[in-house]
Amino acid sequence: MRATTRSRENTRARLLEAAAAVFAEVGLGEASVERICERAGFTRGAFYSNFASKDEMFLELAKAVAQERVAAVRVRVAEMDIGAGLGAEAENAAAIIRVLDVMDDDRVTTLLMHEIEIHAMRDPEFAAAYAAQLDDIVAEVVQLVEEIVEAEGLALRLPAHEAASIILAVWSEVSRRVAIAGLEGDAAREIRSVEVGRVVQLVVERR
Amino acid sequence: MRATTRSRENTRARLLEAAAAVFAEVGLGEASVERICERAGFTRGAFYSNFASKDEMFLELAKAVAQERVAAVRVRVAEMDIGAGLGAEAENAAAIIRVLDVMDDDRVTTLLMHEIEIHAMRDPEFAAAYAAQLDDIVAEVVQLVEEIVEAEGLALRLPAHEAASIILAVWSEVSRRVAIAGLEGDAAREIRSVEVGRVVQLVVERR
Repeated sequence: MRATTRSRENTRARLLEAAAAVFAEVGLGEASVERICERAGFTRGAFYSNFASKDEMFLELAKAVAQERVAAVRVRVAEMDIGAGLGAEAENAAAIIRVLDVMDDDRVTTLLMHEIEIHAMRDPEFAAAYAAQLDDIVAEVVQLVEEIVEAEGLALRLPAHEAASIILAVWSEVSRRVAIAGLEGDAAREIRSVEVGRVVQLVVERR
Repeated sequence: MRATTRSRENTRARLLEAAAAVFAEVGLGEASVERICERAGFTRGAFYSNFASKDEMFLELAKAVAQERVAAVRVRVAEMDIGAGLGAEAENAAAIIRVLDVMDDDRVTTLLMHEIEIHAMRDPEFAAAYAAQLDDIVAEVVQLVEEIVEAEGLALRLPAHEAASIILAVWSEVSRRVAIAGLEGDAAREIRSVEVGRVVQLVVERR
C-alpha cells in the first residue's frame, strides 16, 4: 500500500524515473512493466492507475526529456540577459552556441531517446503520437531561435523553422557520436559546442 | 550439409541478408544466431565458420550498408558526367542534391543502422570498431564532396570534412523522421531532397 500513501504526482514521477533507468540499462524490449514497478517499489496496480500503457509512459518520458531541454535553454537565455550588449558575441553567434550548450544530454538520455525513436519506427500508432509531440517541441525551439536572433541583432540565412531543424539535426548527430565514443560531461560538451557552433555560424549572419 | 555445397562468399552473403531481415523484424536483442541461421537455412556451424561473433556480423552489415551508399553515389556521379556543363545546376547545388538522392535508405535499413548505433552506445568494444568504420566512410564521403564541388566549379563555405558532416547529419535526421512517419520511396525521397538540398545550398557557394 506504499503507493497510496504518496501523492499521485510523486508516484508518476518515481515510475518515470525508474522507467528511464530500466530502459537505459536493458533497452526498451526488456523493460517490462513488472521490472519498472520493481525498481520504483510500486505495484502493477499503481502503474496502471497512472499510465494506460507502457507506450503512454514512453511518450511521457520523451516529453519530459524534451521539456527539460527547452526549460534549460529558457533559463540560460534569461541568465544571459540576451540582447544586453552581447554584440561582440553575436558576431560569432557565441550567444546561440552558449544557449544550446545547456541541451546537454547524458549517455542515458541519448540512449533513451534512441530507443523511443526505434519504437516509433516499429509502431505506427506510437509514431503518430510521438511525431505530434516532436512538432510541438520544434515549434518551441523555433520560437527560441527567433527570440535570440532578434535580441542579438542577428539575421538568419534561411527561415527560422528550417534553421532550427538543421541546428537540431547536427546537435542530435553529435550527441549520438559522443555517446558511441563513451564521452560525457565536459568532453561531450566541448565537441558539441564546436560542431553545433559551426552550423549556427552557417545559418546566422549580421543584420 | 547444404552450406558446404555453396561458396563461402555466398554463405556469408545469405547469412548477412537473413540477419538484416531478422534485425529489422524483431530488433537486435531478439535476433539470435539461431534465428538468423534458421532464416538463412544454414547451421550454427556455418555461421561460426563465417563470423567470429554476432557483433562481427553486425559490423559487416553496417559496413555493407555504408559501402552500398557510397557505391550508389559514385555510380550517380559517373552517370551525371559531373563537370560537363552543369553550371546552371551548380548555381543551386542541384548536382550535389541529385547525387545525395541515391542514398535512399528504406525503413528497414534505417532501423538496422539505428539498432547498430544503439548497440554501439551500449558496448564499448563494439563502439570502437564501429567508430573506426564510420571514420572510413566519412573520409570517402568527404572525398566525394571535394570531387563534386571541384568539378562543378563550386566552393565550400567551410572545410570539406565539416561540410560533409553537416550534410550527413541532416540526411540521417531526415531519414529517421521519414521512417517514423512510415514514408518510403518517392515520398521519402522528396522530403529528403528538399531538406538535404537546403543544407547543401547553405554550405556551397559559387567560386
